[in-house]
Amino acid sequence: MAVISTSAVDAYIEKHSRRFVDELKELCSFPSISNHGRDAVQPARDWLADRLGRYTDRVETLEAGGMPALYAEVPGAGRRKLLLYEHYDVQPVDPVDLWDSPPFEPSEKDGRIVARGVADDKADVMARIHALETLKQLGEVPVTLRFLIEGEEEIGSKTFEKIAHDHAAKLSADGCLWESGTSFDDAGRPTLQFGCRGLVYVTLRVKLLDFDQHSGFASIYPSAPMYLVGALASLRDQDMNIKIEGFYDKVVNPTESDRRMMAGIDPEVEKRRKLVGFEKLVRDPKADQVIEQMLFLPTCNIAGITTGYQGPGSKTVLPAEATAKLDFRLIPDQDPDEVLELLRKHLDRHGFEKVEILAGEGEKPARSDPASAVARTVIECVREMHGEPVLWPFMPATGPMHPVVADLGIPTVLPVGVGRPDNRIHAPNENIRAADYINTVRLMCRIWERFGAG
Amino acid sequence: MAVISTSAVDAYIEKHSRRFVDELKELCSFPSISNHGRDAVQPARDWLADRLGRYTDRVETLEAGGMPALYAEVPGAGRRKLLLYEHYDVQPVDPVDLWDSPPFEPSEKDGRIVARGVADDKADVMARIHALETLKQLGEVPVTLRFLIEGEEEIGSKTFEKIAHDHAAKLSADGCLWESGTSFDDAGRPTLQFGCRGLVYVTLRVKLLDFDQHSGFASIYPSAPMYLVGALASLRDQDMNIKIEGFYDKVVNPTESDRRMMAGIDPEVEKRRKLVGFEKLVRDPKADQVIEQMLFLPTCNIAGITTGYQGPGSKTVLPAEATAKLDFRLIPDQDPDEVLELLRKHLDRHGFEKVEILAGEGEKPARSDPASAVARTVIECVREMHGEPVLWPFMPATGPMHPVVADLGIPTVLPVGVGRPDNRIHAPNENIRAADYINTVRLMCRIWERFGAG
Repeated sequence: MAVISTSAVDAYIEKHSRRFVDELKELCSFPSISNHGRDAVQPARDWLADRLGRYTDRVETLEAGGMPALYAEVPGAGRRKLLLYEHYDVQPVDPVDLWDSPPFEPSEKDGRIVARGVADDKADVMARIHALETLKQLGEVPVTLRFLIEGEEEIGSKTFEKIAHDHAAKLSADGCLWESGTSFDDAGRPTLQFGCRGLVYVTLRVKLLDFDQHSGFASIYPSAPMYLVGALASLRDQDMNIKIEGFYDKVVNPTESDRRMMAGIDPEVEKRRKLVGFEKLVRDPKADQVIEQMLFLPTCNIAGITTGYQGPGSKTVLPAEATAKLDFRLIPDQDPDEVLELLRKHLDRHGFEKVEILAGEGEKPARSDPASAVARTVIECVREMHGEPVLWPFMPATGPMHPVVADLGIPTVLPVGVGRPDNRIHAPNENIRAADYINTVRLMCRIWERFGAG
Repeated sequence: MAVISTSAVDAYIEKHSRRFVDELKELCSFPSISNHGRDAVQPARDWLADRLGRYTDRVETLEAGGMPALYAEVPGAGRRKLLLYEHYDVQPVDPVDLWDSPPFEPSEKDGRIVARGVADDKADVMARIHALETLKQLGEVPVTLRFLIEGEEEIGSKTFEKIAHDHAAKLSADGCLWESGTSFDDAGRPTLQFGCRGLVYVTLRVKLLDFDQHSGFASIYPSAPMYLVGALASLRDQDMNIKIEGFYDKVVNPTESDRRMMAGIDPEVEKRRKLVGFEKLVRDPKADQVIEQMLFLPTCNIAGITTGYQGPGSKTVLPAEATAKLDFRLIPDQDPDEVLELLRKHLDRHGFEKVEILAGEGEKPARSDPASAVARTVIECVREMHGEPVLWPFMPATGPMHPVVADLGIPTVLPVGVGRPDNRIHAPNENIRAADYINTVRLMCRIWERFGAG
């Protein structure tokens, strides 16, 4: 198998870079908001199926009752197989009046491309298709590629686990390149991650009266807000010590390798303080403990509380009902279903059995070995292109990575892509640098060549 | 001084009852919403000044920077003086689309008059003017009447204390008839009250970050909602045991006289349970303890909490800020300013010094002797007209009674008026029974005759 020269690859990409950017913009013009339902995402998926159909006849949709995923296999020259995970769905655009240009009419300004979904995650989708084009035009693809482009990442990947299990054989591979996360930190250093935290999202609801009462009756009628406050206060303290019995049982400690990686991450405490305005961090950690705490401390977070009168001035009311939204970030090897059970038991045991738990999303945490073949390949290629990468054992956020990493057993890396702190993902004026996009195509070609040669 | 015969009084009232109702409706056609400012309340006050001017030239406005009160003195034949407290301002009308007829176009249906303010408190205002007309037309008024018609009761009577203090001499009297409260219970028994509870209304605000963060950062950034929840949980438990040090120091115990009165009040627990839907009352009191608890247990009530995401579905956010609205019902001799101080000290002492207290309304509790001359007169007259009254030491709600009762030292009663449980005060389709209105005019004449003869 012939390795294509880096200079030939770079020359091809350079020559076609204007068209590459235009085609990324074309993909971004589809309003594939998964929150708007199946009809909303189909045109983008059809367009992608057509594009991938240029290189393989093995294109199909995989579905399990939610938004269909797009799958395509491109046989390669080498023996190795690589799974490529991305998603073609995007977040809603509200508040739309804060956009400087219409979110689905991609525009360019000062070297940036602005469009909903351009950073999260259409640049990854399209860069991998352009890398495929590049290598095919210049010769052979050295590794068998298995594209898996999900359609409901932005609404919690509810059927992703089932899709992964149902099609385990199709998805099996020697490594997986996940969608890229934050690829460069504020100082411009490239960053790589090897997993993500899990999530449990619940709404807690308490209703103790049939309707709101005059607050004079608070002497005799029970208070739903106070009951909810009592339940919430029982869950954790201000230092994020979570008091749910058994909650920490499955939390792993950092390994020596994790500690080495984390020692290379700048905690940027003063920069964060200036940006975010906190007075003290939770637990007031020493600087060299901040990153470990950020990653390895599971959370119980109040995302919202609603009850009673919330307008201006006063209203003396005893509210009939109160609700809170909570999210828990889980650390390997915590399990969302087990955490839900522990939460129920805790509430019952502490006299809060009238708190209803309305379960929402749940995703398992996932971590992959940073010394796997695919991880080593990505680290090497990033080092060559962008300098020494900062390595994160896993990212503080959540993704549907567990079925791939744990159930299918595929070593997984979040490679470098277009992600920078100022991308405004999920927000108005989402954008990327066009140069980052072209570099992502280049890096992808390099990784595939290198991994295929292994 | 000649006592006018009851039959002559009743005949006059009977003869003019249609006009009396029409004139009450005329007063109710003024949209005197104090929440809308001084211009909104002036036309109703001018109309009333003109009406009272028919009987006395001592009509004036008393003001101290808020909505002006209307004052009128009508000299009487006897040596006694009676202060009459009412208010001409009304609540806003929202939600206006739930009204069956326009709130300021008074209508009649099935013997009821429907209009904003007709029950609270324009029926009291107008019934006393019609009683004045009746006695004047038939002979002499036997007691000197001092009308004090407030203009900002519905927005917390912020300047009422100052008005009372500034004009103490003008307002001095041997007794005070307050606006009537709930005059008849569900079973139709007349009820009288001799005071009210106090109130402190505050907004608690916590802001720990400059703007909302991704909830993944909850491992290191402090949580404003959790901080507020901790503070709220520290204030009281589910049984309304308030943990603010010194909070109960000034709370009086019921006297023997209070206990005798309360023993005559039906706690109606099963009726309340059916209507309100609670499972158990706070502290699960025995039936004969419910009324004592309702009146003598001061409260710390959460009227509302706002923080973070409150819409449908999920949003994983760490809110920068959280606020709660609280009201405390105070028992004689608690003081709103002292309670505010104790609250501040409690929060500081328990590590919640970052909770800001935005003080709102405060009113002192007030209670008057049910054995005073004016109270005995009212009890007698009500007994004669409506049967044995149910006596409440004070009402569970709040009013600006303290300056009159405590500072001016005037014995005060909430007499029987038009108030029934289905009046819908502060709500759409506020209404009274026209027959109750006419009876209120009759009762007022009787009380004045009897008190003037003393």
